[in-house]
Amino acid sequence: MDKVRAFEAEELLSLDTRYRANLINSLIGFKPVQLLGTKNLAGETNVAPFSQIVHLGANPALVGVVFRPETVARHTLENIRSTGWVTFNHIRKDFLNEAHLSSAKWEGSEFESCGLTEFYREGIEAPFVAEALVQSAGTPLSEYPIEENGTLLLVVRIEGIWVPESIVGDDGYLSIEKAGTLCSSGLDGYHSTSLLERLPYARPTLKK
Amino acid sequence: MDKVRAFEAEELLSLDTRYRANLINSLIGFKPVQLLGTKNLAGETNVAPFSQIVHLGANPALVGVVFRPETVARHTLENIRSTGWVTFNHIRKDFLNEAHLSSAKWEGSEFESCGLTEFYREGIEAPFVAEALVQSAGTPLSEYPIEENGTLLLVVRIEGIWVPESIVGDDGYLSIEKAGTLCSSGLDGYHSTSLLERLPYARPTLKK
Repeated sequence: MDKVRAFEAEELLSLDTRYRANLINSLIGFKPVQLLGTKNLAGETNVAPFSQIVHLGANPALVGVVFRPETVARHTLENIRSTGWVTFNHIRKDFLNEAHLSSAKWEGSEFESCGLTEFYREGIEAPFVAEALVQSAGTPLSEYPIEENGTLLLVVRIEGIWVPESIVGDDGYLSIEKAGTLCSSGLDGYHSTSLLERLPYARPTLKK
Repeated sequence: MDKVRAFEAEELLSLDTRYRANLINSLIGFKPVQLLGTKNLAGETNVAPFSQIVHLGANPALVGVVFRPETVARHTLENIRSTGWVTFNHIRKDFLNEAHLSSAKWEGSEFESCGLTEFYREGIEAPFVAEALVQSAGTPLSEYPIEENGTLLLVVRIEGIWVPESIVGDDGYLSIEKAGTLCSSGLDGYHSTSLLERLPYARPTLKK
């Protein structure tokens, strides 16, 4: 068997900052990665990739988004607070470079700077990413400051979903793989996927 | 272009419960999926798959785990509260069926019932899953009740990491794909991955 590399308590604390960031970000497993679209009250738009997002519940439909400490500029969060809207857009291979680039610090809108196309739906005060096939929009409900490290969990309620009809299963399952949705690992790894299977609801009687 | 299926506010609220669960769980994108190992004060062990986990920070190394409302039995949470320990174990294809089965309601330990192998490391009051190659252990720091739907965010500090030496990059990045780590979609889809690329830290000067 392959040799095991152990990182135990004291070593974990003494690792180089960038090394630890790569290590700990890899440890959670594969992560979702979506472009969040927002605009400010002056109408300037913003788009940025997020992986620190988590399903919170289906009824009502709630998503949690983790924001880093307020010591760095967080346009996405400020815009959501101002307008009450955010869009979620799944990233595909054919605009991966543009999507990744949108995480850089730009003057003006990341849409224009990175070659992404914004568009709007009536009543929603945030831009969608036209290149994305799986899109949703939500409004913020509340904020939970995480005292341990100064991050913030924002709870967002999904208000609308737009997806290719061809990926919607009879039971509501979305074949996001068929839509070309990517996942991420660590801070900068992007992956396509291959469905192994959908497994039936687990009951002891399933055991072979 | 493919026809778009829209689910807007009123329809979202009126969907069949199971349909909505599949739909909303798919919408977040690909999710991590790990087996959480715990035991109670009587020494009875528990293992169950979790996808509602999110990276919270690298320094200190913090992971968030979302637990469903306390109306259902939540042995994992109760055990973490009792012993102060939980292990995280990446799921691989060769024990996917056993891992999935561990989400069912069992009398006694899921390890034995599902054909998974528990083992221990000194000083850690929770069982690891021997079949997993990427393992970590943590202690709970605090709980954030999510008022909107009765879920709970548990903040866990990572105290140790054990991985195959061969997947550790010079910069700390773990090739979890090389370790066979799977990801999930919706409530029951499991996928393997193919690395497209690791992209360099995004700066405006990267633009082609």
